[in-house]
Amino acid sequence: MLGRTYDNQVCSIARTLEIVGERWTLLIVRDALLGLRRFDEFRESLGLARNVLSDRLARLVEAGILDRVRYQEHPERYEYRLTAKGRDLSGALIGLMHWGDKHLAGAAGPPRFTRHAGCGGDVVTRFVCTDCGERVPPGALDMRLNPALATQG
Amino acid sequence: MLGRTYDNQVCSIARTLEIVGERWTLLIVRDALLGLRRFDEFRESLGLARNVLSDRLARLVEAGILDRVRYQEHPERYEYRLTAKGRDLSGALIGLMHWGDKHLAGAAGPPRFTRHAGCGGDVVTRFVCTDCGERVPPGALDMRLNPALATQG
Repeated sequence: MLGRTYDNQVCSIARTLEIVGERWTLLIVRDALLGLRRFDEFRESLGLARNVLSDRLARLVEAGILDRVRYQEHPERYEYRLTAKGRDLSGALIGLMHWGDKHLAGAAGPPRFTRHAGCGGDVVTRFVCTDCGERVPPGALDMRLNPALATQG
Repeated sequence: MLGRTYDNQVCSIARTLEIVGERWTLLIVRDALLGLRRFDEFRESLGLARNVLSDRLARLVEAGILDRVRYQEHPERYEYRLTAKGRDLSGALIGLMHWGDKHLAGAAGPPRFTRHAGCGGDVVTRFVCTDCGERVPPGALDMRLNPALATQG
């Protein structure tokens, strides 16, 4: 989607947007995370034209984010299930959601709550250091270039 | 960007994509997080036409994600600085980056490392429960609807 200029972007965010940056794609993944599986469920949730939805689902299958699985033989019917790669998008999606909850929600509060199924507490996304185990504030993030890729940058 | 159908999407992800879902917008925010501030710096980094970049920067200022600040009087020159609202996007952006690092990086590894400035350890994003303090696996996320918004859903 980023077109010709994408080749100059040695960046995992750019590469990720190349796959899931299209406006509907992340909302399809959101619905899949919420448990939707069938074409008509996605269509009803998103209010999307059949051909557009069909195209986006096919791209997500091609990218390995959804599996297209037959659940009925006569007539043949298929549903879409998140792969492990697709479920891995939950962190980024919840990150986008919490930003919207904080900065765009109205007086009635966020559309959805993210609660810990175990204890009912509010769930937040945090940066954590895998070495020292500490919570890392955004200001303490050091985002250095990978020297092995320096020639491409 | 989601057009007429957006009104039906009572969802903080949809609302967030409405503001930052355009393909270049999140990459401008990425560059701003990495320290870029001036028009020509963004243009060189992104390889973007002046009119497109100008439009996207204006939208980000309008959305309160960037501040346009004069740094020189004769001639007048402006730079773009992230607001607190803009810096809050770092969690979602790093989430997208880590997904790309894991699923799209080549043999040379990720383009950038996220390290803890204090100890040099790898930084990851995690779901944490604010009540019990435990790490929350994605499967233990309960994303229930806000009942105050049920009539709009």
